[in-house]
Amino acid sequence: MEDPATFIANDTYAKSAGVELIEASPGRAWVRMQIETCHFNSHRTVHGGAIFTLADTAFAIASNTHGIPAAAINATISYMKAARGGTLYAEAEEFACNPKLATYMVKVTDDAGDNIALFQGMVYRKTPRRT
Amino acid sequence: MEDPATFIANDTYAKSAGVELIEASPGRAWVRMQIETCHFNSHRTVHGGAIFTLADTAFAIASNTHGIPAAAINATISYMKAARGGTLYAEAEEFACNPKLATYMVKVTDDAGDNIALFQGMVYRKTPRRT
Amino acid sequence: MEDPATFIANDTYAKSAGVELIEASPGRAWVRMQIETCHFNSHRTVHGGAIFTLADTAFAIASNTHGIPAAAINATISYMKAARGGTLYAEAEEFACNPKLATYMVKVTDDAGDNIALFQGMVYRKTPRRT
Amino acid sequence: MEDPATFIANDTYAKSAGVELIEASPGRAWVRMQIETCHFNSHRTVHGGAIFTLADTAFAIASNTHGIPAAAINATISYMKAARGGTLYAEAEEFACNPKLATYMVKVTDDAGDNIALFQGMVYRKTPRRT
Repeated sequence: MEDPATFIANDTYAKSAGVELIEASPGRAWVRMQIETCHFNSHRTVHGGAIFTLADTAFAIASNTHGIPAAAINATISYMKAARGGTLYAEAEEFACNPKLATYMVKVTDDAGDNIALFQGMVYRKTPRRT
Repeated sequence: MEDPATFIANDTYAKSAGVELIEASPGRAWVRMQIETCHFNSHRTVHGGAIFTLADTAFAIASNTHGIPAAAINATISYMKAARGGTLYAEAEEFACNPKLATYMVKVTDDAGDNIALFQGMVYRKTPRRT
Repeated sequence: MEDPATFIANDTYAKSAGVELIEASPGRAWVRMQIETCHFNSHRTVHGGAIFTLADTAFAIASNTHGIPAAAINATISYMKAARGGTLYAEAEEFACNPKLATYMVKVTDDAGDNIALFQGMVYRKTPRRT
Repeated sequence: MEDPATFIANDTYAKSAGVELIEASPGRAWVRMQIETCHFNSHRTVHGGAIFTLADTAFAIASNTHGIPAAAINATISYMKAARGGTLYAEAEEFACNPKLATYMVKVTDDAGDNIALFQGMVYRKTPRRT
């Protein structure tokens, strides 16, 4: 398993968005992002792209914990509450994992424990063929 | 209709990701993002969150062209080809628009005209009630 | 709260697909479908539309347990394993519920307990205005 | 290319839902469904599962026009207008096609030409390896 700390340290975009790793284990990841002015959209709430990036990073870490490179092929996000400050958390959990495809669900919550967004993503896994 | 140039100028997150407006008209928007090192993930391809942010910004501009504030409630993205450099483009087109809900599709392409990602999003529109 | 048994009894399409209610409680629903020849696609596996209909019915029941009419506005499904026979189960759980919008996740499993599909859906709720 | 007429003739679930092929060509398919009482949900509008099945069948036919078996791995649908009668149409168009993955968008419209639903789906393609 690739080290999740190294994985996120090499993820320039997630780092510049302020995403930090809290914890990872096989098929799971938990990350956070402290809200800053740079995360806002023109309505002065956290940009959907920033919330997506937080959830997507949890998804990327969780799906790369098995030692097989995994690339996102699609993702869906539903936004339930606007976020305006404090810290956001994303927790990714594996739903199912096949040799070629795996699916994850990610919950995004705020400091108050309120549900902010629900994310579902699928990866294509580069599992080597048996010889 | 809110001025799209002002709208994007106030969008701190999109600006910091390097998203630029090319053109907007009612129900439509066309934006671009020049790929820089800051957009990469740990695989050295453009981060899914960066591609999402580009598409999401086209979606936000297009859905706010009617003079009614529109907030994203969900979005789906399918990634078809990894992007490594050059400029990416996102073009948002309105599929249907009701008083409360509207749906958009967004195509993301690269300099070579190849299809990079397909995005579909829905907004909740704060249409005032008639009195 | 509308009675879930009556709700599903009036759902002609779900009934003709063979969807049966197991249990419902506020924000939750659990349904099943015994696989018959009528559910197959041209690959002789259960049609994506049949699996979707099963998950969608759990979602519809769960989202209509609060006594406010709720209409689906979007849904996403990821298929992880082909189903060929036996009974499929769908369990819907509420992620978040606002006056106008609510989000649900639905897991579809088979007799062996294997994960078949993951579904995420959003409803628009016709909450009456306060006067 | 497998014959689309044969493909749909073998699709028991789509046939029982009343889906009929209008036309198919490489990467495209156009189907229809005449609304009957059997398609209704408990609100007396066309069940989301029936609209999904119509769109999904167009998607399945379009993605199987290249002679490579293609299996749906995920799909998203946004509903824009309730349907109550007449005929619904679904038109699938290929967005991008790689050896292993392909993405399609499907528009569902009614007799009046109004947009009913927008669907986006991805398939996994069983492209044989070169030897």
